[in-house]
Amino acid sequence: VSQLTQTARTTFGRHRERGGHDRELLHAILDAGTICHFGIVMDGAPMVVPTVYGRDGDTVYLHGSVASRSLMAAGGGIDICMTVSLVDGLVLARSVFEHSVNYRSAMVYGRSRLVSDAAEKLIALRAVTDHVCPGQWDYARRPSKKELAATTVIALPLLEASSKVRDSGPGDSDGPDRDLPIWAGVLPIRTLFGTPIDDPAAARPIDTPAHVSGLVGLATEDRRAPLQR
Amino acid sequence: VSQLTQTARTTFGRHRERGGHDRELLHAILDAGTICHFGIVMDGAPMVVPTVYGRDGDTVYLHGSVASRSLMAAGGGIDICMTVSLVDGLVLARSVFEHSVNYRSAMVYGRSRLVSDAAEKLIALRAVTDHVCPGQWDYARRPSKKELAATTVIALPLLEASSKVRDSGPGDSDGPDRDLPIWAGVLPIRTLFGTPIDDPAAARPIDTPAHVSGLVGLATEDRRAPLQR
Repeated sequence: VSQLTQTARTTFGRHRERGGHDRELLHAILDAGTICHFGIVMDGAPMVVPTVYGRDGDTVYLHGSVASRSLMAAGGGIDICMTVSLVDGLVLARSVFEHSVNYRSAMVYGRSRLVSDAAEKLIALRAVTDHVCPGQWDYARRPSKKELAATTVIALPLLEASSKVRDSGPGDSDGPDRDLPIWAGVLPIRTLFGTPIDDPAAARPIDTPAHVSGLVGLATEDRRAPLQR
Repeated sequence: VSQLTQTARTTFGRHRERGGHDRELLHAILDAGTICHFGIVMDGAPMVVPTVYGRDGDTVYLHGSVASRSLMAAGGGIDICMTVSLVDGLVLARSVFEHSVNYRSAMVYGRSRLVSDAAEKLIALRAVTDHVCPGQWDYARRPSKKELAATTVIALPLLEASSKVRDSGPGDSDGPDRDLPIWAGVLPIRTLFGTPIDDPAAARPIDTPAHVSGLVGLATEDRRAPLQR
């Protein structure tokens, strides 16, 4: 198992049994998510922005108009924390105190880099596009030079990162509360693709491509499965 | 419509047509989410942490062990940005450039306050518990004095905040790309509750309570619906 460098801020305080630093788990969580929340410091205060992202090997690419503004203002890299969280279920215990959430989350820290090279920008946009909808890069019209120039992309290396997973039942199943006449268990949560809605402004009817129709009813985290069949 | 105070950082740069400052929209987005991502500044760098939250009127309460550590270190309030995002669908355009995501998001800025008063802590924990699973506060065993003391809760006033919504089709439906033989549209995404899993360690079988079984198959954002019937 390939291990990530461990630093003070990726060392776990509470619930260290839930934490990990292996690269495979990190990649799996990043690949399973749809959006991330990235944090930057703006005028001394934190700012947390949701955006799409993609992964190419050990680099994460973010669509980053907000971050890129401060990045350009700083004239170089800025500190970023990028977090991806998947909620897998509500953990309903007998006591309010033991309530929890089953989740998988990944936190990536690092200095961001504005991607300016056209070739890397294409790699980045392919990663983002195919992360969100696998197969879409080969299907849609690729960016023109002008569009490429108008798109801001930020790169973040997967160097300093940690993953955290909770995947178990209520925490009061072995204490005195176990005998209370209160139901306890896990209420799963799943995020699924629905049925595609054709653009009502389309010039003529066009069949939904297979890489899109293959997603219907699938969990968003399994979106790569149809291509792997 | 009650308007929130508008500041530089809650004034929209890009896509201002998607932004809003009314309190009703803010409340609706906050009430529809399950977790938030809050950002704090730790040793000068941003840190983004997922956690559960709840709303009581114009105050948001967060479970905040990480934030509370730095809050206590700072000996008072710290700057927080709390973001809640709901992904409603992938917007698949003809051109990669016009790809987007339909979403609802809320960003709340402010100085946090550590909740130490026991009565307010109970209000906060009720808000968080019933936010995640409505009806659960009246069903589960309430926190003891010791448990209450061991729980860290952070309050954030809903004063400086903005909401953003994208809910439309592909952006290239009226340009030259409209005639390309490429399907375009929206692939909806929904987050649903599954079937409850009994705690296998339970001492004896207990029926799933109605406020939990009523959630099965429901979108998480509609979790208040069964109680409102």
